[in-house]
Amino acid sequence: MGLSKNGTIDINGQIINLNDYPLLQGIDLPEDLRQLGQNQLRQVSADVRQFMIDVICRIGGHFGAGLGVVELTVAAHYAFNTPHDKVIFDTGHQGYPHKILTGRKELLHTIRQKGGLSPFLKRGESEYDVFGAGHATTSISSALGVAAARDLNGDDYHVVAVIGDGAMTGGMAYEAMNNCGLQGRRIIVVLNDNRMSIAPNEWAVSNYFTQIAQKSVIQKMRESIWDISGEFGTWGDRFRKVASRIEDGVRAVVTPGMLFEALGFKYFGPTNGHNVTRLVDLFEFAKTIDGPVLLHVMTEKGKGFAPAEADQKQRLHALGGPTDKITGKAIKSPNALPSPPKYQDVFGNAAVEIAKANPKVVAITAAMPDGTGLNPFKAALPERFFDVGIAEEHAVTFAAGLATEGIIPIVAIYSTFLQRGFDQIVHDCSIQNLPVVFALDRAGLAGADGPTHHGSLDLSYLRIIQNMVVMAPKDEAELRDMLYTAVNYKGGPIAIRYPRGSGIGVEMREEFTELSIGKGEKVREGRDVAILAIGDMVPRAVEAAEKLAEEGISVEVINARFAKPVDTALIDEIGERFDKVVTLENNVVAGGFGSAVLEYVATQPYAHNLDILVHGLPADTFVQHGDSDELLAELDLMPDGIARVVRSFIGLPATAQLLEI
Amino acid sequence: MGLSKNGTIDINGQIINLNDYPLLQGIDLPEDLRQLGQNQLRQVSADVRQFMIDVICRIGGHFGAGLGVVELTVAAHYAFNTPHDKVIFDTGHQGYPHKILTGRKELLHTIRQKGGLSPFLKRGESEYDVFGAGHATTSISSALGVAAARDLNGDDYHVVAVIGDGAMTGGMAYEAMNNCGLQGRRIIVVLNDNRMSIAPNEWAVSNYFTQIAQKSVIQKMRESIWDISGEFGTWGDRFRKVASRIEDGVRAVVTPGMLFEALGFKYFGPTNGHNVTRLVDLFEFAKTIDGPVLLHVMTEKGKGFAPAEADQKQRLHALGGPTDKITGKAIKSPNALPSPPKYQDVFGNAAVEIAKANPKVVAITAAMPDGTGLNPFKAALPERFFDVGIAEEHAVTFAAGLATEGIIPIVAIYSTFLQRGFDQIVHDCSIQNLPVVFALDRAGLAGADGPTHHGSLDLSYLRIIQNMVVMAPKDEAELRDMLYTAVNYKGGPIAIRYPRGSGIGVEMREEFTELSIGKGEKVREGRDVAILAIGDMVPRAVEAAEKLAEEGISVEVINARFAKPVDTALIDEIGERFDKVVTLENNVVAGGFGSAVLEYVATQPYAHNLDILVHGLPADTFVQHGDSDELLAELDLMPDGIARVVRSFIGLPATAQLLEI
Repeated sequence: MGLSKNGTIDINGQIINLNDYPLLQGIDLPEDLRQLGQNQLRQVSADVRQFMIDVICRIGGHFGAGLGVVELTVAAHYAFNTPHDKVIFDTGHQGYPHKILTGRKELLHTIRQKGGLSPFLKRGESEYDVFGAGHATTSISSALGVAAARDLNGDDYHVVAVIGDGAMTGGMAYEAMNNCGLQGRRIIVVLNDNRMSIAPNEWAVSNYFTQIAQKSVIQKMRESIWDISGEFGTWGDRFRKVASRIEDGVRAVVTPGMLFEALGFKYFGPTNGHNVTRLVDLFEFAKTIDGPVLLHVMTEKGKGFAPAEADQKQRLHALGGPTDKITGKAIKSPNALPSPPKYQDVFGNAAVEIAKANPKVVAITAAMPDGTGLNPFKAALPERFFDVGIAEEHAVTFAAGLATEGIIPIVAIYSTFLQRGFDQIVHDCSIQNLPVVFALDRAGLAGADGPTHHGSLDLSYLRIIQNMVVMAPKDEAELRDMLYTAVNYKGGPIAIRYPRGSGIGVEMREEFTELSIGKGEKVREGRDVAILAIGDMVPRAVEAAEKLAEEGISVEVINARFAKPVDTALIDEIGERFDKVVTLENNVVAGGFGSAVLEYVATQPYAHNLDILVHGLPADTFVQHGDSDELLAELDLMPDGIARVVRSFIGLPATAQLLEI
Repeated sequence: MGLSKNGTIDINGQIINLNDYPLLQGIDLPEDLRQLGQNQLRQVSADVRQFMIDVICRIGGHFGAGLGVVELTVAAHYAFNTPHDKVIFDTGHQGYPHKILTGRKELLHTIRQKGGLSPFLKRGESEYDVFGAGHATTSISSALGVAAARDLNGDDYHVVAVIGDGAMTGGMAYEAMNNCGLQGRRIIVVLNDNRMSIAPNEWAVSNYFTQIAQKSVIQKMRESIWDISGEFGTWGDRFRKVASRIEDGVRAVVTPGMLFEALGFKYFGPTNGHNVTRLVDLFEFAKTIDGPVLLHVMTEKGKGFAPAEADQKQRLHALGGPTDKITGKAIKSPNALPSPPKYQDVFGNAAVEIAKANPKVVAITAAMPDGTGLNPFKAALPERFFDVGIAEEHAVTFAAGLATEGIIPIVAIYSTFLQRGFDQIVHDCSIQNLPVVFALDRAGLAGADGPTHHGSLDLSYLRIIQNMVVMAPKDEAELRDMLYTAVNYKGGPIAIRYPRGSGIGVEMREEFTELSIGKGEKVREGRDVAILAIGDMVPRAVEAAEKLAEEGISVEVINARFAKPVDTALIDEIGERFDKVVTLENNVVAGGFGSAVLEYVATQPYAHNLDILVHGLPADTFVQHGDSDELLAELDLMPDGIARVVRSFIGLPATAQLLEI
């Protein structure tokens, strides 16, 4: 893959010629865009959309959201003097057109790849990225912060937050709008309403918008006035005029704006978000208004790309890889091997099986029915499936409420997003010791989604909580047993964390086995050194042990299974038999599984004879985006690297050598 | 203090005679209440209010909120068949009348004391406490969980959430209401609107209610209709009738209800929350409605207690101790010594001093201007003071936004409440490495407020986050220096955690000293054993060392200052000189400061020669409520206990013995 040469971009041998985008080719930065006439913006939008389709169909990536905001983004950079004016995009999914217009179009094809463009907005990447955003619903809060700073610093610029309707289910949006209203500061919020978000969304207000749009209330009122006024004979006309004035008054009040006005915003809209010149006018108008303004813009996710428009479910939220531009189908290399099932699907299917056998089991997702693998659950047991929207705080406490009445909730939230529910886990689940099951997908490095999405903290933030049980399966078969174990555990809150992507291809058993809480297992005998591994590090440790065995180094491997409670009996046995132990986890080393082992060992008599090396994700570096295995390899967390670490830990050269025996 | 004997309660020699409360004396449980006629409920309310005033004025406790909900609570237990019907109170401050009516009136005087009634609602305490709540805004989520469980279980009962207007600033309320609307389930939310919450609150919608209440829009419309209709002569009357019908229609729509209706609720109110019979009628009516219902009830915090009604600021949110029933002034014992300044006041005053010298410094609180000590800041620098309401998520990201533009925000939130902003600290502050200062009051045990309020996790949950600096002062003078250090630190997010209550009375210096990041200090030389202590454990360790010195045991004491980064040079020195080290912290031992020391030491050559005892709050027990020093003493975290722990760690009998030298 090459950078642009002579106006071309080489993507794996497929050439994109920038000359094919007549206006976009001349736009490097928004200041170039602003040289054009307003009547040229339709063509700019067409160029941006086509360029985005051409590039992303070749490489995959987030897609639908970006296509929906092409005109909005063009209009924003045209009407606002970026980067002097600050435009903050909520959740970087919608950031592709923004990247294209802010000096990064020739790098778009590197997005999500190691060393390439960040998948989301990122402050370090561009001065146009005012505030980084991988998690949803942060834009209004951060924009209000910027606006307050502007006023305190005596500066004068516009601050704009662009937030999608999906993100509007998050409580932060409401907290922030409420505070905007009270501060009364000049700030423009653009509600990008595509009525979809990641999946068709769970925002009640959106339904309400529809009712309002149908204006049934007003319509009814109008009809009744017209009917009655007929009785007034010659006075009727006069009456109708008065009634019409009243009706206008009512309509001005009875709009979606009401909601935002209650929170202190001036509301304008809804307006067509694909009419770029009208959007520019709207933005210019909004600039003249003092205090918080909300612009309600209707857009279509996936706009302008037929396969996306035809996808009722997700509007091609993201492309997994190279995709046919006409059909929207993934282009697979013909001899690709079938992958083992994904962890998310193993989880989702196991949840259905367990729930079918146990009528008390329900599943909860926070706007991720696909990503969490819960779609089959939704299909099979709709009345026991809850999508609460992007609302992790509510999801956790809602689950706690269910648990008080004997329901067994499985709360399936990505590791990084469950951080939003940390207090609710402590305050509502653990203090009350309620049996809520947490299923954390995307634990450990999340690959191409990068630092905002890595689930690198959960073993640490969960194991410090009283009453919690924290486990991680060594493979997809064990995930099934862990879910079964968790659902049958009545002792309090219990969490399972497992990685993104495919399992390792082990044989799947149909029946479930209940595991003993706090008990690990020995997966390989050894004499020289022991590895206490947890989760997806177990098979990697085994592979490392096999490599080391070839060199005459005998490595015992333990599948710890539990980060809390740790298997003290097993640790004792290891501590008494070995003088070197490596702990291994796909989690930061600060406060994680290794740290739990250290805490226990410190209390034991064999502590003095034991060297423990805690190995995992670095404590003070945010791992960037890229292929997970590649990233793990760099961190010495793939088998070769683990072997290297073990060798040097036991005093051998880090590179492999055949020992003379 | 004695339990009731012969219908009397002895509170430190002051006798309360239950016969003085004619109807309340016969009410042990709500079923007794429900035997009475509806016309007797005013007297019941009067009894409950007087009993509460009589008891709480003798002992102190949360007060204003409870007085405001006397009628509401009486009506709820009268109209609903508790505990079969589930009434969930948001934030237990308002729970006192509920406790009085549900079998606990004779124990009310033990509230907040060790072994006595819990300060908030607590599941373990009563079957009438459906869901425990110390943190705000959890009631609608948990109630929806209960309601969903009811429907899944095929049960039939009413679920009621009683939530105050202050709690309505929390995003969870919105997430939950949105989800209620979408689920369409039968649930009753009672909005207890006292327009105050803890302090006059920061809910924009509340201002909007006022506008609506003034009905200026409707009034204007009505006047104009009346004016015009005069012109219609004989038709005028008919016209006015029609207009009046239209107006009614408009008014039905243009009410606060609009907001809740948009979220899918049926709205009724506002109604007078002190008219107990009307409340019963309203509840009976609400029972007949299908789907989510919101009842808007206007109450007065501190109702019926003149000194509270006269307190414009907080309406006597809580009484600190025995209080004069007439004046509302605290009754002090005449020879009480003046206490050292509270940490919160030292913090608040230092913040003002620093901000006066540095125009970039601002302060943010989440509805706790008093408790965080920020009132002087608000008074001195109102334009740089932000109270965002009970909205910790927004508070943190708002601060991050400010930091992007060079403002230095001090975010002052209690340790336990900052758990609500955990993800925002990670995602918005740390990943972007923005210099935001966190000031965590109530770190460690929070005394009488109990497990929901103990700040027992922060050293653990903060030190695992990349880029964070985490410190804790040994005394109130060091708090000033740490705040100064934090404000001048530009390297990223930085947190200071300090305890509830008074400092230790050290001399205060006027000037500020900037501390070196990650550097501790030796506060006492010793030879036999070293204590690495952090925060308020440092002076306790010194006292323990003094006791031990009398027995011939020489203890070195280190003030660690930083939980992250730990002072590796100082640990090396200690590790090389000692073979026994105790770490000491007012935080759970799981993943905390001691754990950080273990992690570092494990990498060092002296690890084999070093025994480390990690001492702090227990990892798997929620410490209950009571006097903090008393609780700490039980956990061997006061000087005597620390000495005991040290003795037994170095192999001596746990009780003091003079060594033969």
